[in-house]
Amino acid sequence: MAEKASGYRGVRRRPFLLLGTGCALFGLVLGIIIGYFAIPKRATPWSAALTREGDPSIAARLQREVTPDNIRENLRELTARPHIAGKEMDLGVAQLLRDRWLEYGFDSARLVPYDVLLAYPSRDPNRLSRVSLLESDGTVVVESQQQEAGADDPEAEPPFNAYSGSGEVQGDLVYVNFARAEDFQTLVRDLGVDVTGKVCIARYGKIFRGDKVNQAGQFGCAGLILYSDPEQCVAPGMAVWPDGWMMPSTGVQRGTVKGTNGDVLTPFYPANEYAYRLPEQDAGLPTIPVHPISYGVAVEILRNMAGPEAPLDWQGGLDITYHLGPGYTGPANSRTVRLVVNQDREVRTTYNVIGTIRGAVEPDRYVIVGNHHDAWVYGGVDPSSGTAVLLELARAMGKLKREGWRPRRTVVFGSWGAEEEGLIGSGEFVEDYIRSLQERTVAYLNCDAAAGGNFSLSVAASPLLHRMIREASKKVPDPHEPSKKLYDTWRMKRPEEEGNPDTRPKINKLGAGSDHAPFFQHAGIASSDMLSDIDPALGVTSYPLYHSAYETFDLQDRFIDPGWTVHQAVGRLWGEMAVTLADALVLPLDVRDYAAALQQMMDELRQEHGSRLSAQNIGLEHLESAIANFTRATTNFHQTVGSVDKSNPLTVRAVNDRLMKLEGAFIDPLGLPDRPWFRHVAFAPSSVNTYAGQSFPGLADALFDIDNAADQAARWEVVKKQLAVTTFTVQSAANTLVNNLF
Amino acid sequence: MAEKASGYRGVRRRPFLLLGTGCALFGLVLGIIIGYFAIPKRATPWSAALTREGDPSIAARLQREVTPDNIRENLRELTARPHIAGKEMDLGVAQLLRDRWLEYGFDSARLVPYDVLLAYPSRDPNRLSRVSLLESDGTVVVESQQQEAGADDPEAEPPFNAYSGSGEVQGDLVYVNFARAEDFQTLVRDLGVDVTGKVCIARYGKIFRGDKVNQAGQFGCAGLILYSDPEQCVAPGMAVWPDGWMMPSTGVQRGTVKGTNGDVLTPFYPANEYAYRLPEQDAGLPTIPVHPISYGVAVEILRNMAGPEAPLDWQGGLDITYHLGPGYTGPANSRTVRLVVNQDREVRTTYNVIGTIRGAVEPDRYVIVGNHHDAWVYGGVDPSSGTAVLLELARAMGKLKREGWRPRRTVVFGSWGAEEEGLIGSGEFVEDYIRSLQERTVAYLNCDAAAGGNFSLSVAASPLLHRMIREASKKVPDPHEPSKKLYDTWRMKRPEEEGNPDTRPKINKLGAGSDHAPFFQHAGIASSDMLSDIDPALGVTSYPLYHSAYETFDLQDRFIDPGWTVHQAVGRLWGEMAVTLADALVLPLDVRDYAAALQQMMDELRQEHGSRLSAQNIGLEHLESAIANFTRATTNFHQTVGSVDKSNPLTVRAVNDRLMKLEGAFIDPLGLPDRPWFRHVAFAPSSVNTYAGQSFPGLADALFDIDNAADQAARWEVVKKQLAVTTFTVQSAANTLVNNLF
Repeated sequence: MAEKASGYRGVRRRPFLLLGTGCALFGLVLGIIIGYFAIPKRATPWSAALTREGDPSIAARLQREVTPDNIRENLRELTARPHIAGKEMDLGVAQLLRDRWLEYGFDSARLVPYDVLLAYPSRDPNRLSRVSLLESDGTVVVESQQQEAGADDPEAEPPFNAYSGSGEVQGDLVYVNFARAEDFQTLVRDLGVDVTGKVCIARYGKIFRGDKVNQAGQFGCAGLILYSDPEQCVAPGMAVWPDGWMMPSTGVQRGTVKGTNGDVLTPFYPANEYAYRLPEQDAGLPTIPVHPISYGVAVEILRNMAGPEAPLDWQGGLDITYHLGPGYTGPANSRTVRLVVNQDREVRTTYNVIGTIRGAVEPDRYVIVGNHHDAWVYGGVDPSSGTAVLLELARAMGKLKREGWRPRRTVVFGSWGAEEEGLIGSGEFVEDYIRSLQERTVAYLNCDAAAGGNFSLSVAASPLLHRMIREASKKVPDPHEPSKKLYDTWRMKRPEEEGNPDTRPKINKLGAGSDHAPFFQHAGIASSDMLSDIDPALGVTSYPLYHSAYETFDLQDRFIDPGWTVHQAVGRLWGEMAVTLADALVLPLDVRDYAAALQQMMDELRQEHGSRLSAQNIGLEHLESAIANFTRATTNFHQTVGSVDKSNPLTVRAVNDRLMKLEGAFIDPLGLPDRPWFRHVAFAPSSVNTYAGQSFPGLADALFDIDNAADQAARWEVVKKQLAVTTFTVQSAANTLVNNLF
Repeated sequence: MAEKASGYRGVRRRPFLLLGTGCALFGLVLGIIIGYFAIPKRATPWSAALTREGDPSIAARLQREVTPDNIRENLRELTARPHIAGKEMDLGVAQLLRDRWLEYGFDSARLVPYDVLLAYPSRDPNRLSRVSLLESDGTVVVESQQQEAGADDPEAEPPFNAYSGSGEVQGDLVYVNFARAEDFQTLVRDLGVDVTGKVCIARYGKIFRGDKVNQAGQFGCAGLILYSDPEQCVAPGMAVWPDGWMMPSTGVQRGTVKGTNGDVLTPFYPANEYAYRLPEQDAGLPTIPVHPISYGVAVEILRNMAGPEAPLDWQGGLDITYHLGPGYTGPANSRTVRLVVNQDREVRTTYNVIGTIRGAVEPDRYVIVGNHHDAWVYGGVDPSSGTAVLLELARAMGKLKREGWRPRRTVVFGSWGAEEEGLIGSGEFVEDYIRSLQERTVAYLNCDAAAGGNFSLSVAASPLLHRMIREASKKVPDPHEPSKKLYDTWRMKRPEEEGNPDTRPKINKLGAGSDHAPFFQHAGIASSDMLSDIDPALGVTSYPLYHSAYETFDLQDRFIDPGWTVHQAVGRLWGEMAVTLADALVLPLDVRDYAAALQQMMDELRQEHGSRLSAQNIGLEHLESAIANFTRATTNFHQTVGSVDKSNPLTVRAVNDRLMKLEGAFIDPLGLPDRPWFRHVAFAPSSVNTYAGQSFPGLADALFDIDNAADQAARWEVVKKQLAVTTFTVQSAANTLVNNLF
């Protein structure tokens, strides 16, 4: 270049030089600017993915994939044969799920077996369980049947209450209404009816049947007959099965009466090959015989009873006047009732099915969706309507995955065995993997029956999930009015505040009615449960054919969800929730809602027990102060979440981990007094109704009916201790959100 | 520019254009290259820091900072006055620490108080605790003193055994050797000496004194006198204090006899203002009176005892023939021994001091270094030699921080109160913050007394920390031969394999002798404990002046560590360990050492109990299989750790979290049978000697002396259950290391 330039030596050299240098400089500066700013540096391979927000189009695509027809076909297949836990078809359904998930493209799907104590009614013709009304000479006036009319599938087990005591009792009958604690108190204390050694009869409803058996045992009943009263299972003027979806006189509700969760022989530990098993007599199972009957049989047994008329609100829906007993009156006065129960308890294998779609960025974080697969008979509602939806959700997610999507976090599908016997499959699973689940699980999203009715969505959840669930429901079309969103119909039909047009939908506290209980109340994992439910205005307890042999595909196809859009909506919502949790960069868990929930619980506690507590010089100021600290911590932490540097993956992870672990901070490893398996200090199933959620359960249990307690001084000590434990736990949970603890 | 350019129109225009374009292009390309490659993009602010390896020069600088002179001055200051827990100077020392740490530049330092049950000897002249040898007319032959000769500080408490029962017993004396379970068995079963209702005398040594009291209580002794036998506290031919560091005849070992850790009134929960406190009689404290005496008094009391000669190995170091009793012989035969103990138990405040140097990158991960600050008297060894080192370490770290260093993770300094009474300050702290500590703590590094002797380093630790500690010791000069490393002298003096010239140093199992116990055995946090110890060849139990008033600054300055290099070496090692854990990108915890430890424990179990178990048809194959699974999981995980993509901060964090949480996976929330506060399934203090570590403690406890157990059938059921629990826990821990669990 120097040679060439020599030709320009002299006058022209300077401008050339100037121009060249200028242009070169200009180019250089421009180049540097372009090179630095305009060309993205070949990113460190992970950087973009680690801090990328979830793709909002995924959930929308998932929603489009979930179709009514597929769900319908799934349910038809799932309900083809009875599939009670521990028997052939229970394994059959589990295998079907595993195979489908693999076919859909899951990264893994496998059966996880546990060997657990199950109970079945004896099929020996000489040992059949039954309830009989007898003349004094032994002639049978009426007797319960081994099958429900029109449902004579030999594969179906006769109606029974699993884990009842076995034996035969015969004697005078006493009517005990719902067999709640308050019913027995009224009966024994106020009405002076002796139930000791009597055959008692109670209607289903209001509380979990296992709690009825527990009360009956405590009050000394010799046996307990459970029946479905029309008041609880036939809405006035509505047709019974097969012409409608109300309970006919031949239908019987089955159900477990075991009071604990998980396998009874291996509490706290998984029921595997080397488990230490309690002797059966130490397992706390009911000892009195219990058996369920239809109202067609019950009406004959309740007719002509002696003793005072039952109180007005004890009168049920049968066309008789209910008397308390004991025994019969008039020409029937020598009649007795005989209750025979023979159940075989065996350790048998139940199978969970666990499938995964592994996370791309945080494979060690799990979002778990779960449903059980065992059914008392066909499971047309419980649980197979949920299973049908789970399968369709799995297919849809598998399709998205094959189209290139992979969630940020791992999505785990769980299909549990032996839920009906007492949350056994999920209970054992949680006990088995509790250390890893507590470390890795963002949330557990349960759906048991997807559609028990077509009235409205019904949800129970940890406060942490409330906002996320409400937001998800705003994205799902209503199954009946697709122009509206699920959120809109939900909040109108199940308002948080009655009469407020701007109300949010009500979200209930979690009880222990389904598989969320081990995750939430034992392991401290934020959980939710949901279904489409019936109109409470009908006045019936859950869907009327619950746990009968009439719970079939037809029930759904003809009455509950003929268009299958209710199932579709549940599936869409479930998918929205799962994808939101799996894909969000910052987890959409809202700690402020937890503070609000605690404050409300505090108000309720003060209202219900404040004066009783002050009379004992027990102040609530420390609990109040802990809740105030918790509220402050959540407010600050929520700001932290809102302002987190989303480009720093470690900070985001740290924030997410605290969100994820907050629920677990409410777990007290020592558990609740007298029921140590329940360890969540803020929420537990009610001790008097397992289905219902109870806030501050350690306190609530200790305070329950304390004014009438025999051991009041000891009970007040428990109250004081539980108040301290509750206060400490709330404060500890607050601390987990604080950066600089010391 | 266009105007100006017109002057060059014509011939010259083309070259100008070419040149200008060329230069501009050249500049542009060069610029782009420079802009893209040579100028580091203003890094996303975090990227470099998040994945940066720790700076290896930091630890070296820290070592240089730790000086003997500073430690000497610290100890002089700390030992100026007695500072027993709960009294004025205990708070004084705590305040001193807090103020120093703030002065050194810590990000925070504060006192954390707990209100706990403490015990002090009565100072009422009419209620003084004492042991007296009495003639039958009540004349005192010899009596224990309220002070040790030459140590008449009115601020010092008289010698006592904290939490002894109070009361007066008088009667025949029985000599029970070390009061171990086996001693009582020999005495009662083999030698036929009845101890029921007797005043028993035992020498200190072999096991924790609280376990002696427990055994004495179980065997029915009316009271227990503890004394320091010369065999355990005077090495042959060595001078006693003040001419040497052996125990003189006037010295008395104080010490707690409480068997549990933490405040006894608030087990499992912090002793705060709203804690529920057990009634004192339900707290499981000893009920029999216990009192310590010197061997100058003991020799008079043991002389002329009646009954058979004690077995050869029961003969101690006093110049008498030890007899078992009961009572006295010859002219002394009407003498009795009277034991009077009056202690005041009061709920008083003890203070922990917590200081932090916050982490730059992972402030939510803690490396905790800890030592207690309360002392029975001056604490010249226990604990203030450790406190003096802790202070110097704090100063050195503060200096580095002021020079620009900030650790990757937060370093927490903990100075615990009321350790001597039974790990009370640390126990309450762990109970108080357990949820956050379990989530955030990488390791707890304890040092109680830094220098009990100048022979060799002595370490006990979780297997996870073994490799890191050994590596750290390779970087610290030996205090006596600075050309060698601590590692070299340590491994020669405390070899893992005797006689192997290539041996590694031995690292012991953790017992419960100091503040690591709540972290390790209750919370499941990887922990270590260390000190410079005496030569075991001397045959004495720990350092001879242990817990006497002669434990002073002078003891260190004149005998144990006149050059203060032993203290310096402990401080340097401690600093190395802390900085390594705080700064390493990938945590230097080695899971393979855990597998090796479990395998060795399995071998020991098989050797010790294998045939006994087979005789009961109890197989070990499931535990073996779980350990094999654990070994496989650790091998795989170690490879994962080795090949982790260090440029991906999320992957590194996930790996670190699993390393950090492995220890916690060994925690069973239900705890060990009969001592539920100890929850580590792999390691616990021995039930018969709190100081020693016991592997598979649930099993070991159930199997202990089972052949002689009264309730053998029930004990074998416990064995079976604990075998299942141990197996499950090992398998669970393995699972936490597995990526794709399902």
